[in-house]
Amino acid sequence: MLASCLSRSFIVGLVALMLTSCGQSDQSQSVTDNTTNNKTYRWKMVTTWPPGFPVLQEGAERFAANIKAMSNGRLDIKVYAGGELIPALQVFEAVSQGTVEMGHGSAYYWAGKVPEAQFFSTVPFGMTALGMNSWLYDGGGLELWREIYKPFHVIPFPLGNTGVQMGGWFNKEINSVDDLQGLKMRIPGLGGKVLAKAGGNPVLLAGSEVYSALERNTIDATEWIGPYHDERLGLYRAAQHYYYPGWHEPGTVLELTINERAWNSLPADLQAIVTNAAQAENLAMLSEMEQKNAEALQILKDRDDITIAPFPDDVLQRLKTLSEETLEEEAAKNPKFKRVYDAYQKFRKKDAAWSEISEQKYLNIESAQ
Amino acid sequence: MLASCLSRSFIVGLVALMLTSCGQSDQSQSVTDNTTNNKTYRWKMVTTWPPGFPVLQEGAERFAANIKAMSNGRLDIKVYAGGELIPALQVFEAVSQGTVEMGHGSAYYWAGKVPEAQFFSTVPFGMTALGMNSWLYDGGGLELWREIYKPFHVIPFPLGNTGVQMGGWFNKEINSVDDLQGLKMRIPGLGGKVLAKAGGNPVLLAGSEVYSALERNTIDATEWIGPYHDERLGLYRAAQHYYYPGWHEPGTVLELTINERAWNSLPADLQAIVTNAAQAENLAMLSEMEQKNAEALQILKDRDDITIAPFPDDVLQRLKTLSEETLEEEAAKNPKFKRVYDAYQKFRKKDAAWSEISEQKYLNIESAQ
Repeated sequence: MLASCLSRSFIVGLVALMLTSCGQSDQSQSVTDNTTNNKTYRWKMVTTWPPGFPVLQEGAERFAANIKAMSNGRLDIKVYAGGELIPALQVFEAVSQGTVEMGHGSAYYWAGKVPEAQFFSTVPFGMTALGMNSWLYDGGGLELWREIYKPFHVIPFPLGNTGVQMGGWFNKEINSVDDLQGLKMRIPGLGGKVLAKAGGNPVLLAGSEVYSALERNTIDATEWIGPYHDERLGLYRAAQHYYYPGWHEPGTVLELTINERAWNSLPADLQAIVTNAAQAENLAMLSEMEQKNAEALQILKDRDDITIAPFPDDVLQRLKTLSEETLEEEAAKNPKFKRVYDAYQKFRKKDAAWSEISEQKYLNIESAQ
Repeated sequence: MLASCLSRSFIVGLVALMLTSCGQSDQSQSVTDNTTNNKTYRWKMVTTWPPGFPVLQEGAERFAANIKAMSNGRLDIKVYAGGELIPALQVFEAVSQGTVEMGHGSAYYWAGKVPEAQFFSTVPFGMTALGMNSWLYDGGGLELWREIYKPFHVIPFPLGNTGVQMGGWFNKEINSVDDLQGLKMRIPGLGGKVLAKAGGNPVLLAGSEVYSALERNTIDATEWIGPYHDERLGLYRAAQHYYYPGWHEPGTVLELTINERAWNSLPADLQAIVTNAAQAENLAMLSEMEQKNAEALQILKDRDDITIAPFPDDVLQRLKTLSEETLEEEAAKNPKFKRVYDAYQKFRKKDAAWSEISEQKYLNIESAQ
């Protein structure tokens, strides 16, 4: 029984109001048949990942399947891996031009076109997943991101996070900053700029070439992702020194991009479905990365032909100083970069003060013997 | 004018329901008919939170609004705060019996009925939000939780997380374990048992009584949630020493409970909508807690009439040892509790090894001066 019953006359009045006011308004929300709501949307989504790439490509496919299930097939998204329809690094352009409706990748892949977008992905010594999600959803980050992508007619959503990555695989021990001199390391983007400042030699290599380059000593070191993906790629066979933490990628946000016109063509219920599915999958990928990395770390620890060690503190401190310098320099030469950097830093400062007495303090106590 | 217009057939169905069901039996689930997919489900969700309670009650209401938007009104959930329809601590029972279709709360509230459910909420010196989500979604935790609730005909989903809480407000400094002797502290559940082992005197008080009890020195200390909720409750006016971290609640999972029969009555698309909405809102509440706690901490830090300090290391070490003892003792006397404890510990051990070299190591480096 209803908690409180309304009088018949009130109901009749309410109905009269509903019937008259509905007649004049936007009908796009009407439930039954005819128009908008029974239309089936067949969309294409292109990603930057190799076919079948664990967690990331799988997550994009799960996201599409969830939308199909929720919409009862009314929004049917076919997912293509990098290169299947569009080359991986042209995903943003394809979504921007409307060649496809959706993309999945990470914002730092478009650093050449939109340098400030890197803050919506990850930056060296930046925030972890908890801070990034908090900034994006509740600290104004997502609104800023949408404003930055607006000229490209692209609407971004967070869709996954790798968590803290690993520092990478090295063919020699790193005992001091001197050991970075001349080091040929595959490390793209801002992390590469920081390494260069430290005296290293960053090398650009496609993911598919990383293993063989390291194995043949064309490079001395490479970063990749975390224990799970690194173990699958077999990097432990190509280099024996595995370092942590991934100072250059402390919580990489993956992004869903949607062509603005395609988005606007969706009725409100399908927009709500996409929004919720993206947020759900954002958490799903982060949680899966955590579990799979924990499993894989144990496997790697059981190998006696590799060492797993932290970078020395002075190396990390040097990289941190150089990371701050790098971001300051980029900001000095690009006002848009500076604007996002300032917003990021403002949020981050407050978040760090809280993180230090909550997450960080607790983890330190909990793990103490 | 109403924000969204309902179809004429829906209104007619609604009126029919209102007219016939007032004063009669519960017809609340049949509104319009036709096929499965045009049927409208009117559900009730009861929560354990006070009306308007920030983040938690607000999050439950946002979750319901998202489902309504995604389903175009086909699943319409009315949310009631604790006491509005059902007393807060009878939420589980009401969902179990089918009095209402949905509940929102946290599993440790039902510790008297299902002691092992506490692991699906939080335990002293347990996992943080990242580990809990990873265990629940990818480590078998949710399957185990569903099995535990199965005899009650209740299906649980994670729906929110408080993040690491604060240790609480004390009317004196805590400099050593001796300062806990005889301490009258409002701290429920397992945390209270641990405090008792440490020589303290745990007191049970409803949330509504906490402030005045502390202010009148009926109790010496209380835990509550984190800076945001604590600041709003004005606890800084009742006690001057604010301690961290919240060793007793390091990442409290909030739960959605659904009556099994009600769940089974939903078509697959609405089930998918509920599942995704819950996962999205799980992340939404955690992210919002992080942002609001960071803001509130700054406000509290600006006050010069309180101190914000860590518990001394030896106090935390003692509480940790006693927490392990407490869980072992509960496990020894209850095989169901032991079964969940063992599963939790098995996952947690692996997760901790990864967390130490990823999240924890990174946070320590990132915050170092």
